[in-house]
Amino acid sequence: MDHAVELIDHHCHQVVNRDLGHDAFANMISESFADAAPGTSHWDKPVGLSIRRWCAPVLDLPKFASPADYVDRRLELGAAEVNRRFLRRSGIARYIVDSGNRPGELCSVDELAALAGAPSHEVIRMESVAEQVVRDGTDAAGYAAAFEAALEGSLTANVVGLKTVIAYRSTLAIDTSPPSAAEIEAAAGAFLRRYDATGKARVVEAALERHILWRGAELARARGMPVQFHIGLGDPDVTLHACDPSHLTQFFRDVESWNVPMTLLHCYPFVREAGMLAENFRHVYFDVGFIQNWSGPSYVRMMEDALETAPFTKQLFSTDAFGLSELYYLGALRFRDSLSRVLGDWIARDECPMDEAARIVGLIGGANARRIYPGLG
Amino acid sequence: MDHAVELIDHHCHQVVNRDLGHDAFANMISESFADAAPGTSHWDKPVGLSIRRWCAPVLDLPKFASPADYVDRRLELGAAEVNRRFLRRSGIARYIVDSGNRPGELCSVDELAALAGAPSHEVIRMESVAEQVVRDGTDAAGYAAAFEAALEGSLTANVVGLKTVIAYRSTLAIDTSPPSAAEIEAAAGAFLRRYDATGKARVVEAALERHILWRGAELARARGMPVQFHIGLGDPDVTLHACDPSHLTQFFRDVESWNVPMTLLHCYPFVREAGMLAENFRHVYFDVGFIQNWSGPSYVRMMEDALETAPFTKQLFSTDAFGLSELYYLGALRFRDSLSRVLGDWIARDECPMDEAARIVGLIGGANARRIYPGLG
Amino acid sequence: MDHAVELIDHHCHQVVNRDLGHDAFANMISESFADAAPGTSHWDKPVGLSIRRWCAPVLDLPKFASPADYVDRRLELGAAEVNRRFLRRSGIARYIVDSGNRPGELCSVDELAALAGAPSHEVIRMESVAEQVVRDGTDAAGYAAAFEAALEGSLTANVVGLKTVIAYRSTLAIDTSPPSAAEIEAAAGAFLRRYDATGKARVVEAALERHILWRGAELARARGMPVQFHIGLGDPDVTLHACDPSHLTQFFRDVESWNVPMTLLHCYPFVREAGMLAENFRHVYFDVGFIQNWSGPSYVRMMEDALETAPFTKQLFSTDAFGLSELYYLGALRFRDSLSRVLGDWIARDECPMDEAARIVGLIGGANARRIYPGLG
Repeated sequence: MDHAVELIDHHCHQVVNRDLGHDAFANMISESFADAAPGTSHWDKPVGLSIRRWCAPVLDLPKFASPADYVDRRLELGAAEVNRRFLRRSGIARYIVDSGNRPGELCSVDELAALAGAPSHEVIRMESVAEQVVRDGTDAAGYAAAFEAALEGSLTANVVGLKTVIAYRSTLAIDTSPPSAAEIEAAAGAFLRRYDATGKARVVEAALERHILWRGAELARARGMPVQFHIGLGDPDVTLHACDPSHLTQFFRDVESWNVPMTLLHCYPFVREAGMLAENFRHVYFDVGFIQNWSGPSYVRMMEDALETAPFTKQLFSTDAFGLSELYYLGALRFRDSLSRVLGDWIARDECPMDEAARIVGLIGGANARRIYPGLG
Repeated sequence: MDHAVELIDHHCHQVVNRDLGHDAFANMISESFADAAPGTSHWDKPVGLSIRRWCAPVLDLPKFASPADYVDRRLELGAAEVNRRFLRRSGIARYIVDSGNRPGELCSVDELAALAGAPSHEVIRMESVAEQVVRDGTDAAGYAAAFEAALEGSLTANVVGLKTVIAYRSTLAIDTSPPSAAEIEAAAGAFLRRYDATGKARVVEAALERHILWRGAELARARGMPVQFHIGLGDPDVTLHACDPSHLTQFFRDVESWNVPMTLLHCYPFVREAGMLAENFRHVYFDVGFIQNWSGPSYVRMMEDALETAPFTKQLFSTDAFGLSELYYLGALRFRDSLSRVLGDWIARDECPMDEAARIVGLIGGANARRIYPGLG
Repeated sequence: MDHAVELIDHHCHQVVNRDLGHDAFANMISESFADAAPGTSHWDKPVGLSIRRWCAPVLDLPKFASPADYVDRRLELGAAEVNRRFLRRSGIARYIVDSGNRPGELCSVDELAALAGAPSHEVIRMESVAEQVVRDGTDAAGYAAAFEAALEGSLTANVVGLKTVIAYRSTLAIDTSPPSAAEIEAAAGAFLRRYDATGKARVVEAALERHILWRGAELARARGMPVQFHIGLGDPDVTLHACDPSHLTQFFRDVESWNVPMTLLHCYPFVREAGMLAENFRHVYFDVGFIQNWSGPSYVRMMEDALETAPFTKQLFSTDAFGLSELYYLGALRFRDSLSRVLGDWIARDECPMDEAARIVGLIGGANARRIYPGLG
C-alpha cells in the first residue's frame, strides 16, 4: 500500500513539543499511572520494541538502538525536529484532533498542523466542556443550560465532531435513556459539591453523562457531524467489561433514525463486537486505533479481527496518538502494512480482486471519514 | 474434504422462493433494519464479496461479477432455479429448520426439501408458540396451560427439537430459576395488555421466558430431543454482552442430570465461551453457524476458535441460512474448507493422524447431530 | 528454545501418585463433573490428541497410541515411574504449588519434589484456610480473628505466596471494598449455618471473600509475597463472564500503592483483558497456564494473545497441572514451543533482535517469577 492513499487520522491528540528526558519519555509509553514495576522498565513491551525498530532509523540511529541512545538522540535533535520528522513521514494527510485531554502538556492543534505540514481539525471533548462550566461557576439549577450554551459555543469553524469519554466516567454500563431536568439538577448538585470539596472538576455522574450523550447527539444532528465514543482499552481509569460497546445498543436503537454518525474508537478487545454494531446500525462506525501502534509486532491481528464481518464502508483509520510523534508514525505504518497484508492474503487466495482491495484501502484509509465528517475540504 | 461426508445442517431457516429485486436482495445481506448508510451499499462487506466470488459462477457468471449483474442474472434464472442450484450444490444432506422466523416471507419446509432434493425436519421456535397462544385468545390465568398445550400440540411427526430465542427477548442475563405460577400469570397479564394496546404479539417478559426455558427442557426430556439456544450475534434486537452463553451456566447446572442436549447456536463472538461450556457440561453442544457464511474471506478464524478446547463430539454444523439459498451454499463451502484447513494444518504439524482428522470431520459434519437428534432416518 | 532456560512453574498442583484405571484416567482429562456424553469419550478432544501424540512416546509407545493402550502402558509402568518420567522430562526447574485443591486425591508437595527431582514451594489457598477454620469450630463473632490467625499460621517456611479462588465462589463480579466487622460476622453466621446443615464447609459469601481479599493482600504486603487469583476458565462451578479479571479493576486501583504482586492465573478467554491490566497496573502479572496444555494443537494462539500488548516483564509461566504428570510435561512443551514460534516469527519479520527474544524467553520462563516470589533460592 503506497502513500498515494489519503490517510485521514480521525482520532488523535497533539504532541509534546518540548524535550522529554529519559524518565519522561518512558512514562509516555505506559498507560499506567505509576512507575514501572520494581526491577523493570516501561520500554520492555511491544511498543518499546517497535520504537527501537521502526523509529530509531528515522532519527538516524541503527535499528534496535538502546532506549538510552534513543532518548539521547531525541534530545540532541530537539523536540520540534523529531516531531516534524515523524509527523511528515507518517503519510497522514489530515488530522482530526481531540484537544481536550491534558491540554497543558501538549502543543496546540495549530502547532500540530504546522509541525505536520497538514491540515488539522478539532473534535470537542464534551466532558471537558462540562468541567469548564463548573470551573467557570454555575449552580445546580443553571448547569444544564450553561452546559448546552457552552457546548454550542465550542463549535468554532474548525470543529468537525463531538466526542464523549463516558466510558471513563460513568462507564457504558448505565441506563442510557434521556435524563429528566430533575435528574440533571440533582446530579449537577453532586458534581458541584465534589468540586467545592476537592477543587477538582471531574464529571462522573451518570445523569450528566446521559445529558452529554443526548444533547451531544442532538447538536451533532443539527450540525451534520459525528459523535465519537471512547470504547474499550485505556488507562487505569477504565474498567474494561463496562466499556464493551454493546452496552450502547439501546442508545443506538433510540437514535438510529437521526442519521448521526457515531464512531467507536479503538474498541480493543471488543473489536468483533464493534464490527457487528457497525453491521447492525447504519450510523455506527469503528476503528482499531491506538492498539496497532501499541501492540508492536502483533499489529496485524487487530486488523484481522476488524475485517471479519463489518461493512468496508464503516471502518475508519485513527492512531489515537498522544504526546509522542512516534505514535502517529507507527500507527500509520502499522495500519497501512496490516491492511496490505490482510487484503494481500485475500488476493492471494482469490477471495478479492486487486482493484476491490485498492478501493477498500481507500475507503478505510480516508474516504469513509471524508464522507461522514463535514468540512474536510 | 470431499462431499462424501454427510452434512447435517442442524440450524437453518427456509428460502425466499420468489424473485428478489436489486434493493430486496441487498437488504437480505444485511443484519440491520435500515437501508445502507448514505453513500454506501449493503454489498460492500465480506459476505458481498463472497457472493460475487463463489456464488456468481454457480449462476454462470464470471467470478466477481458486479452486484447489478448478479441480481440481473438471478432474476433471469428465476428464484426456483437459483434456489435449486445453490441448495443441491451445497452438499447438505439433511436440513433441520426453524420455521418460526418471519414465515410469511419464506417458503415452507416441504418446499425447501423439494428444492434441495433432501429431507428436512423441523424445530419449534417456542416464542412463536407463545405468541400464537396470545393471538388465539387467552387470559393471564389461562396462559400457562394454553402455552403448554400448544407447545405439546406443535410436536408433529417431523419435529426433532425445540428452540428458544430468549437471547433476543429478555436476554440471557436473567435469573433462570423456574418461575412460580403467580409470576407467570403476572407476566402474561403484562404481555396481554401490550398485545391489546399495540396489536403486536411479542413475548419479552423474563418470567415467560423462564417458563419457556423450563417447560421446553421438560418436554424435550420427555421426547428425547434437543433444545437449541440463540447465542451471540444477530440483528439490532440483540444486545451482545447479554447474549454471552455463560449467562446460562446456572441453568445448565440445574438440568445437567436430565441429559437433554442443549445446542448453542452461532456463538460469535463468544465461541471460546461456548467451547468451554461444551467441555464443562455433558449436555451442551455448539456450532459456529451463520458467521462462516457472513465473514467472507475470514471464515477460517471462527473454526480455529471452535477447535481450541471443546470435545470433537460436541461441535455441530449449521449454516443458519435465512432467505437466500446462497447462504446455505456458502455456509457449507466455508465449513468444509475451514475444517479441512485447520485439520490439514494439524496433520502437517504431526499433531493429528489423517484417519483421526477424517473421523473428526464426520463427527462435526453430521454424526454428532445424528447422535442427539431423534428420527433422522 | 532449549532447556537451558530456567522454567519456574508458578502455579500448579500435585500429581496422583497411584495407578489410574481407564475410567479414572479419562475423568482426569475432563473439566466436567459428569461422565462423557452418551456415545462419546473424554479422550475425544484436543488434550486427548496431545497426550496420544506427545506423551505416548515418553512411555515407549508409538505416537498416537490408542487410549486403551496408553492407559494399559501407564498401569504397566506404575504411577511413580510415569510421574518421574514426565516431571523430569518437562524441564521445569522449580514448582510453586497450590496444595489446597482436593488434597486427598493427590500426593504431597514433598512427594512431588521428590518425583520431579526439583524444588517445590507452596502457595496457600486462602479459601481452604477459611473452610478449615469452620471445620475446626468457631462462632460467627470469632470467625474473623480465627481466620486471620490461621492464615498467618499457615505461612510455614516453604510458603511463597497466597491464592484466592474467589472467582469460583462469590465470583469476581462483586463490590470488592473492605467488609465491615458486622458484614463479616453476618456472613460467617450464614456460612456456619450452612455447614451445620450440610456438613460441607464451602465458603461462598461475598463478605467473606472480601475479607480474604483484603486480609490476604495485607499479609502478602507484610511478608513480601504475591497473591494469585483464579481467572477465567475452570470446571462447571465457574461462570465465565463473572470471572473476567477486569471486575477486579477497582480493587487493583485501591491497593496499587502497596506494591503487592497480584498474578492472574490462566485468564482464558480473557487473555487480552489480563494483558491490559498488566500494562495498566504496576503490580499486576498474568499467565496463560492450563489452556496451553488443554488446547492441544491450538496452543500457539493463546501465546499470540498474551504477547499482544503486555510488558514482557509481567507475564509468567505456569502449567496449572493437576493430577496427571502429563499435564506438566505438555504445559512446558507447549509453552516453550509457542514462545519460540511467536518470537521466531518476530525475528523472521525483523521485529525483534535474537538476543532480545532470548531475554524475553528468560523473563517469562522464570526471571519474572524469581523477581516477585520470595525465597526461590
